[in-house]
Amino acid sequence: MDFASKLATRAKLMELEAVGRILKAAGDPSIISLAGGLPANEVFPIEVIGELSVKVLRDHKFAALQYGRAIGFTPLREALAEYMTQRGIPARPENIIVTSGSQQVTDLLGKILLEPGDVVAVENPTFLGALQAMNGYQVKYLPIPCDENGPILDALDELLRQNSVKLVYLIPTFQNPSGGVISLDRRKRLAEITAQHEVLVLEDDPYGRLRYRGEELPAIKAMDELGNVMYTSTFSKLLAPGMRVGWLVADEQIIRPMISAKEASDVHTSTFCQAIAYEFLSGGHLERHLPTIVAEYGKKLDIMDDEMRRSFPAGARWHKPEGGMFLWVTLPEGANTSEIYWKGIEQGVAFVPGDCFYVAEGGENALRLNFSYPSPENIVEGVKRLGAVLNDALGG
Amino acid sequence: MDFASKLATRAKLMELEAVGRILKAAGDPSIISLAGGLPANEVFPIEVIGELSVKVLRDHKFAALQYGRAIGFTPLREALAEYMTQRGIPARPENIIVTSGSQQVTDLLGKILLEPGDVVAVENPTFLGALQAMNGYQVKYLPIPCDENGPILDALDELLRQNSVKLVYLIPTFQNPSGGVISLDRRKRLAEITAQHEVLVLEDDPYGRLRYRGEELPAIKAMDELGNVMYTSTFSKLLAPGMRVGWLVADEQIIRPMISAKEASDVHTSTFCQAIAYEFLSGGHLERHLPTIVAEYGKKLDIMDDEMRRSFPAGARWHKPEGGMFLWVTLPEGANTSEIYWKGIEQGVAFVPGDCFYVAEGGENALRLNFSYPSPENIVEGVKRLGAVLNDALGG
Repeated sequence: MDFASKLATRAKLMELEAVGRILKAAGDPSIISLAGGLPANEVFPIEVIGELSVKVLRDHKFAALQYGRAIGFTPLREALAEYMTQRGIPARPENIIVTSGSQQVTDLLGKILLEPGDVVAVENPTFLGALQAMNGYQVKYLPIPCDENGPILDALDELLRQNSVKLVYLIPTFQNPSGGVISLDRRKRLAEITAQHEVLVLEDDPYGRLRYRGEELPAIKAMDELGNVMYTSTFSKLLAPGMRVGWLVADEQIIRPMISAKEASDVHTSTFCQAIAYEFLSGGHLERHLPTIVAEYGKKLDIMDDEMRRSFPAGARWHKPEGGMFLWVTLPEGANTSEIYWKGIEQGVAFVPGDCFYVAEGGENALRLNFSYPSPENIVEGVKRLGAVLNDALGG
Repeated sequence: MDFASKLATRAKLMELEAVGRILKAAGDPSIISLAGGLPANEVFPIEVIGELSVKVLRDHKFAALQYGRAIGFTPLREALAEYMTQRGIPARPENIIVTSGSQQVTDLLGKILLEPGDVVAVENPTFLGALQAMNGYQVKYLPIPCDENGPILDALDELLRQNSVKLVYLIPTFQNPSGGVISLDRRKRLAEITAQHEVLVLEDDPYGRLRYRGEELPAIKAMDELGNVMYTSTFSKLLAPGMRVGWLVADEQIIRPMISAKEASDVHTSTFCQAIAYEFLSGGHLERHLPTIVAEYGKKLDIMDDEMRRSFPAGARWHKPEGGMFLWVTLPEGANTSEIYWKGIEQGVAFVPGDCFYVAEGGENALRLNFSYPSPENIVEGVKRLGAVLNDALGG
């Protein structure tokens, strides 16, 4: 049977074939992959999860196993409202919907918000997964001009003036892939400018708690007076991604249609996983566990940065981030990291070429390295191998 | 801020407002609800799930907690391929994608297959959740004329001849809401007719294993020679719906774009829940546990049917199903179950009015009762109350 004629064309739009090919090559076990974006296996609180699984079944009984509400498990939404409020984002349980990771927030927002041809403004480079989710809704992207402190505000203001933008998508803290942080004054002005233009903002914050040095900054959502900012985060980096529990904080006018979209998509997120996440958060496990993750990733970042200083050619430039999971490296103009990628594979090391993360021109001479997942030994060896490839490529 | 102008109109299409009002009234704790579609709390294998949670973390370790593949947890897909093959549906792991319940199968198929205005042929009445999922893709429904043995084949053939139908959606065994079963000869002819028309079929089989009497029938997918039939089932009724683990069996040409759609939607289904489902299936727990569910629900069905015979007026007609979770009752022409519903609420009993399940005219004089969730005492008392209301309404 000829299925091709039956399949909607937007299925193709959701595929990122080049990226798929790259990640496939990076999955070869003989290759040291600095390409992924995974938490470290060794920081998963396996013992705690085992104890909480048993506790959840004992305390919540069938409530942890039965169908639940599309908006999410009530105790978890109450605990998240308290957690968000403590972190400077005043929220009531009515402002929170639980999703299967924050990836699903982007997808469901697409469902209730985005029509073909709608314009979404994004940092350039930005997170691939968000693009993948929104591609399904056939949107157009406008790149927001950025510098090392985040979006350039005059340029964003002009962009919003000249275009009918439906959504602004931002990762303000330890951005994926750049590792960048939007400065405090820009956060304030971002809230103001987007409110003036009455444009919706999705603030994606998966990495905010993974800070290894420097001072925490408030979320843009914390400065949202109009209600146009939506904030999403996840347990993926704090508990385990395999639980698939994330959440959205937003105005009730957004949450209500999100509930319908969630119900239509998968009824609700696993009640069992939500109950475990609830116990993890409300029982104080998150705050007790976080220092372990921060210490481990901070150490790995130092090891990677140190080895890069030793092994990388002078032309390679990077800013050591204060947190997150990624290091973003820029090579001299004219270098082509998509070509260098395959040389890296030959030498047994993988990264993600920078242009994968760009919605417009750019990133051809950049690359992303992940330091959270590989072991310290693999970080050192991987960076050494990559250093040799880069020295060769740059004629160093 | 005026969010209404920002929200896409299809958000409204996903809401089934009247149904929402009805289910809300049925949620009042003073009311005996025969309206829901939940498994019984008392049949959840809580002990087993606790043991498997611990086993999964011990045996699979971080693999049960880390990010996984969008297509699903490999051991589960291998076990499902074997399970499906044993049940007459030859399948390899490449033919199987794991989803967050079978609701997500319908949603993701919408994503890869359905464009606004596309035509989906459905039994009339049919499952509300499937309509809710497909409404988001702005499809049109064509009701398939049915009798007590399922779709009338000449009428379906004619319908497929005269219309460009993208998808045929069927629940062949213990249909929701009717409880009906498509007969064996019709299953064979359905596979043939849909293959002749090269139309895709989604066979939704959540209840097939919940058989209390009579002989099992092969799935339509078991007779699929062309590869146009897709089969979905779920652990929701066999293990627990709160785990949110379902699956699709289909041709690889369908599975491939489904993987992209799944990844864009929520990356993958909870690895932890998938690993538990894997142990439940491969460890023989499913087959050991199933007789408990069948005995319990079969007993409840008998209790409901017996009490209906005692309490319902002569004008109420129903066919006692051989399995599933629902009893479908037809009142004389002219009776209006949407009006009777509110009289039931006054008397402390809830059901679902029949017209909720219809995509076209019909069902005004029908109603659906659920026997899996309520206790035997509540079944007896609820049916007594409803009997009084029906006697009153029908002037009996």
